[in-house]
Amino acid sequence: MSEEAHPQHGPHGYSGDKAAVLGRLRRIEGQIRGLQRMVDEDTYCIDVLTQISAAKSALQAVAVGLLEDHLSHCVVDAARAGDPSAKVKEASDAIARLIKS
Amino acid sequence: MSEEAHPQHGPHGYSGDKAAVLGRLRRIEGQIRGLQRMVDEDTYCIDVLTQISAAKSALQAVAVGLLEDHLSHCVVDAARAGDPSAKVKEASDAIARLIKS
Amino acid sequence: MSEEAHPQHGPHGYSGDKAAVLGRLRRIEGQIRGLQRMVDEDTYCIDVLTQISAAKSALQAVAVGLLEDHLSHCVVDAARAGDPSAKVKEASDAIARLIKS
Amino acid sequence: MSEEAHPQHGPHGYSGDKAAVLGRLRRIEGQIRGLQRMVDEDTYCIDVLTQISAAKSALQAVAVGLLEDHLSHCVVDAARAGDPSAKVKEASDAIARLIKS
Repeated sequence: MSEEAHPQHGPHGYSGDKAAVLGRLRRIEGQIRGLQRMVDEDTYCIDVLTQISAAKSALQAVAVGLLEDHLSHCVVDAARAGDPSAKVKEASDAIARLIKS
Repeated sequence: MSEEAHPQHGPHGYSGDKAAVLGRLRRIEGQIRGLQRMVDEDTYCIDVLTQISAAKSALQAVAVGLLEDHLSHCVVDAARAGDPSAKVKEASDAIARLIKS
Repeated sequence: MSEEAHPQHGPHGYSGDKAAVLGRLRRIEGQIRGLQRMVDEDTYCIDVLTQISAAKSALQAVAVGLLEDHLSHCVVDAARAGDPSAKVKEASDAIARLIKS
Repeated sequence: MSEEAHPQHGPHGYSGDKAAVLGRLRRIEGQIRGLQRMVDEDTYCIDVLTQISAAKSALQAVAVGLLEDHLSHCVVDAARAGDPSAKVKEASDAIARLIKS
């Protein structure tokens, strides 16, 4: 994980919406615990898979929200400060990892 | 969620590996809690996204494992018992949901 | 690519629907050529991305259709002939590749 | 498709790499034609699926490249010109469509 400090960006993009992001992640945690219960109770496999698809969608929605905040803050700030190419490359690599994961 | 009973299949496909599946889901729950900590501590957005990609991969690996068990048990049993077409359609729909989610 | 012959399965699962699968692939080829035209004419990037998403969805729909046929034929035949575990593993690996690609 | 002109951005982001993008799309077109040949010759289904996964990966790589160019040009230009929020939202929506497709 990058240990790099980002003092020039002040609070990260998601700080404003931190409560909303945390709320979504807590709901996803609840979905994962629900999955454990389903497996523990021998729920029919297809129903477990449907619930996994839902958790995956929810996780991706969090990622897209974070990406939008990141573009709005870090990339935009870098564009205004001078050369944003490193930030753009970093964001594109994160998008590629997300698509391929 | 389907309320359909599956008495003819006996214990579901994943029952044998239940402990392993539960272990994987518990690790994913830990990853989701780790994500909450990262957001709470204003971790750099790109690092949060990397961790989301890892949780998504782990969730998909659970899904593929469940699918393999489901094919090995439910679909194979249905093939031997007569007409497996409903089970095959159901599995294909689950695969499609997983790919599109 | 596997050079393995599959004489025991007779015509492959998709043979019956070969015309339909070929029609879908031809439409996807048309989408890819449309993409080349868009890029050549400097179409706005976001519109090109929308068209890429559509082609990707169409490609995945072909894959899910082929998988369903494969499960209906090869896996079901293997289940009836004896031990389907190699066919199930092979199908699961293909599903995993598709999800991760 | 958006009919909006983007005169302020001059040539689109990918114009510089147009030849490279077109080359990649032509290779993908070749992959799709290869898929038609495989289906026509009754190639084993799993091998067809492997080739579909490869074409999907190649298509996504084009999308990520276009996104990176788009962020580098349109989003960065908008950031410097004033309010980039519409461009950021548009890019995030395209990323979401790509992830969900």
